[in-house]
Amino acid sequence: MDRSRLEAFSDGVFAVAITLLALNLVVPGPGPGHPSLVTQLAVRWPSFVAYLISFFMIGIIWVNHHVLVRSIAIVDRTLLFLNLFLLLFVVLIPFATGTVAEYLSVSRNNENTQVAMAVYAAVFLGLSIGFGAIFEWTLHGQHVYRPMPPDKHWAARRRFVGGGAVYVVAIVVALFNAIAAFVLIALVAVYYIVERTPSSPAEAESPRA
Amino acid sequence: MDRSRLEAFSDGVFAVAITLLALNLVVPGPGPGHPSLVTQLAVRWPSFVAYLISFFMIGIIWVNHHVLVRSIAIVDRTLLFLNLFLLLFVVLIPFATGTVAEYLSVSRNNENTQVAMAVYAAVFLGLSIGFGAIFEWTLHGQHVYRPMPPDKHWAARRRFVGGGAVYVVAIVVALFNAIAAFVLIALVAVYYIVERTPSSPAEAESPRA
Amino acid sequence: MDRSRLEAFSDGVFAVAITLLALNLVVPGPGPGHPSLVTQLAVRWPSFVAYLISFFMIGIIWVNHHVLVRSIAIVDRTLLFLNLFLLLFVVLIPFATGTVAEYLSVSRNNENTQVAMAVYAAVFLGLSIGFGAIFEWTLHGQHVYRPMPPDKHWAARRRFVGGGAVYVVAIVVALFNAIAAFVLIALVAVYYIVERTPSSPAEAESPRA
Amino acid sequence: MDRSRLEAFSDGVFAVAITLLALNLVVPGPGPGHPSLVTQLAVRWPSFVAYLISFFMIGIIWVNHHVLVRSIAIVDRTLLFLNLFLLLFVVLIPFATGTVAEYLSVSRNNENTQVAMAVYAAVFLGLSIGFGAIFEWTLHGQHVYRPMPPDKHWAARRRFVGGGAVYVVAIVVALFNAIAAFVLIALVAVYYIVERTPSSPAEAESPRA
Repeated sequence: MDRSRLEAFSDGVFAVAITLLALNLVVPGPGPGHPSLVTQLAVRWPSFVAYLISFFMIGIIWVNHHVLVRSIAIVDRTLLFLNLFLLLFVVLIPFATGTVAEYLSVSRNNENTQVAMAVYAAVFLGLSIGFGAIFEWTLHGQHVYRPMPPDKHWAARRRFVGGGAVYVVAIVVALFNAIAAFVLIALVAVYYIVERTPSSPAEAESPRA
Repeated sequence: MDRSRLEAFSDGVFAVAITLLALNLVVPGPGPGHPSLVTQLAVRWPSFVAYLISFFMIGIIWVNHHVLVRSIAIVDRTLLFLNLFLLLFVVLIPFATGTVAEYLSVSRNNENTQVAMAVYAAVFLGLSIGFGAIFEWTLHGQHVYRPMPPDKHWAARRRFVGGGAVYVVAIVVALFNAIAAFVLIALVAVYYIVERTPSSPAEAESPRA
Repeated sequence: MDRSRLEAFSDGVFAVAITLLALNLVVPGPGPGHPSLVTQLAVRWPSFVAYLISFFMIGIIWVNHHVLVRSIAIVDRTLLFLNLFLLLFVVLIPFATGTVAEYLSVSRNNENTQVAMAVYAAVFLGLSIGFGAIFEWTLHGQHVYRPMPPDKHWAARRRFVGGGAVYVVAIVVALFNAIAAFVLIALVAVYYIVERTPSSPAEAESPRA
Repeated sequence: MDRSRLEAFSDGVFAVAITLLALNLVVPGPGPGHPSLVTQLAVRWPSFVAYLISFFMIGIIWVNHHVLVRSIAIVDRTLLFLNLFLLLFVVLIPFATGTVAEYLSVSRNNENTQVAMAVYAAVFLGLSIGFGAIFEWTLHGQHVYRPMPPDKHWAARRRFVGGGAVYVVAIVVALFNAIAAFVLIALVAVYYIVERTPSSPAEAESPRA
């Protein structure tokens, strides 16, 4: 299996998932007794915020996925299924986004909204685990062009575990305060946009990239 | 027709189909008299199980499709239509998955659930036939880079017929016990993830891959 | 503009449109007073027939699009917009397919079904015109690698006009007998699968394909 | 990051967004008390007009995106996020198109229709800003193969600001007369199809394109 088709399939899934996000942006539209469009849009502000967060999350994952994959020299069956595991959660993002937005429109913090937010955070935790698993795979064998020196493995792993830990915290926080968890998840997205993870093995340039 | 555009189109269909699977994951959402989100999610466990199975099935088909196609030296009109026949069933997977999940939510084993499960198994049988047909095409003419020796053809065909036969069994089982057929289909997916079919002609490396 | 991105974008549209076809395959599902799933599926046979026809139509267009595009040496702005004109109708196929299937489920031949079938045929006429326009573009300037000799232009155009004329007939027939038009459209699809148009300029091999 | 994967992902988003446009083309279908299909289609003419405009708008953006991206020599993190910003609005087009079409079907010019039209124009303004931002990025550093001479920067920027200004006008006009704004937006689309912006840096040919 060559790398290019792994990228093509993954890019397709990213592109479809990011575009399907907007399917959640539906207003009831005109109808007897319906509020004005301005009111409909204003009531749905959580949909737009959740759309924004999820859109940039998928975008960030796509960027990082690319950087990680281009460092890879050998595509084996294990990698393909780790990649499928990652995509499993990418595909869940529109569902989790739509659900959390719907419940936030009704209540900022009742029990259902808290559960929806915990599910939303859990999907990002799944993504984080998927990424960590692919990263772990790159540390072994001759899988990448320029393997990371073994003495740096644990430092790199700690960073990955740290990223996942934020989502575990977000899940727990969500069960007490949905908005606080929402802000936490948004901050992670902003962090990933601003900060570039510098010492990932992906920085190693592939000779044929 | 060069192979790369066959791959690009097929990858697009795989990517869209795998992402559309998640459109079936819809909860009724908030509303007067609606159960809690936890209850809504719990009642819909068959949707999530069916999502998982179908997701990995499409993933497996994608992996195997790639391996088979990269062994191909000549793309002719016959192959294009055999490939379309295969994709015809790929595209049906979200529909079959959604239908079976919906009926499973209502009853584990009434007549409708059995029919839905039989349809679900039939779509996978169609996929299996499509794959077998493309495989058969690779055995003839100068279609692949390293043709399989003729004395191995029947052994290879038996393996393909064997795979299809499991789905025929699943269709029959479904009409008596939907859950048993569900487990059978899930086991096939697990088998394909764990086991690699070793002697397929696709293992022949294409010189330009 | 290089040809490959034209192909990538078009392939994306073809892949999404062919997969969205299956979104029309929805059964009402379980519910109080709902008929059995077998009945629901049986009543919706026109959905499945229309799905089949439209699926292979998009597949055929994709095959022919590829053959035509790979003969092209220069991608100019005119070609891009002719291609968009073609895709405009590709994207309409799921809508037209869903509409005709819905009305066929209610009546084989009332006035609404006739209109729906005429719209369905009109979308294919639009596709045919789009293809004819791109073909006409290939006859002029230095747009293709091996231009068709001018004395063959009119014979080739007649074939294209002939193809479009069948859909004009189908539109007229639809307004009297929807099923007859449906059969006519299906026969065109079968014809395109079986018969290869042999003297198209697309047969000229591109030196870098 | 190499340019090709940026193009592949963007093309995927463009292709999905342009195809999802047609999901807004839904007629109520057959049913007791429903008007005839001809009436249903006729009442929904704004859907079809909006579909046409948005379809060609996405097509134009795709063409211009390609021309701009192929002039780029270096893909950095800033460009990736500017590109995501652009795609954020591409993905919103089907939502904005569906909303404006729905309200236009009810009233040509009530308050809700005006708001919907302003939102529609605002999405195109967002696209215009995204494009301008990527263009600005190409003016700095060694980002493109043939940088535009500095003395032409302000003339080029004025053209971009001019394009965006039309959408600002359309937003304001929409709040008084929705149809007038609709015509204005349509005219911009027609202008972009007919006129090619001649002095963009994108005309610089990339040596490896």
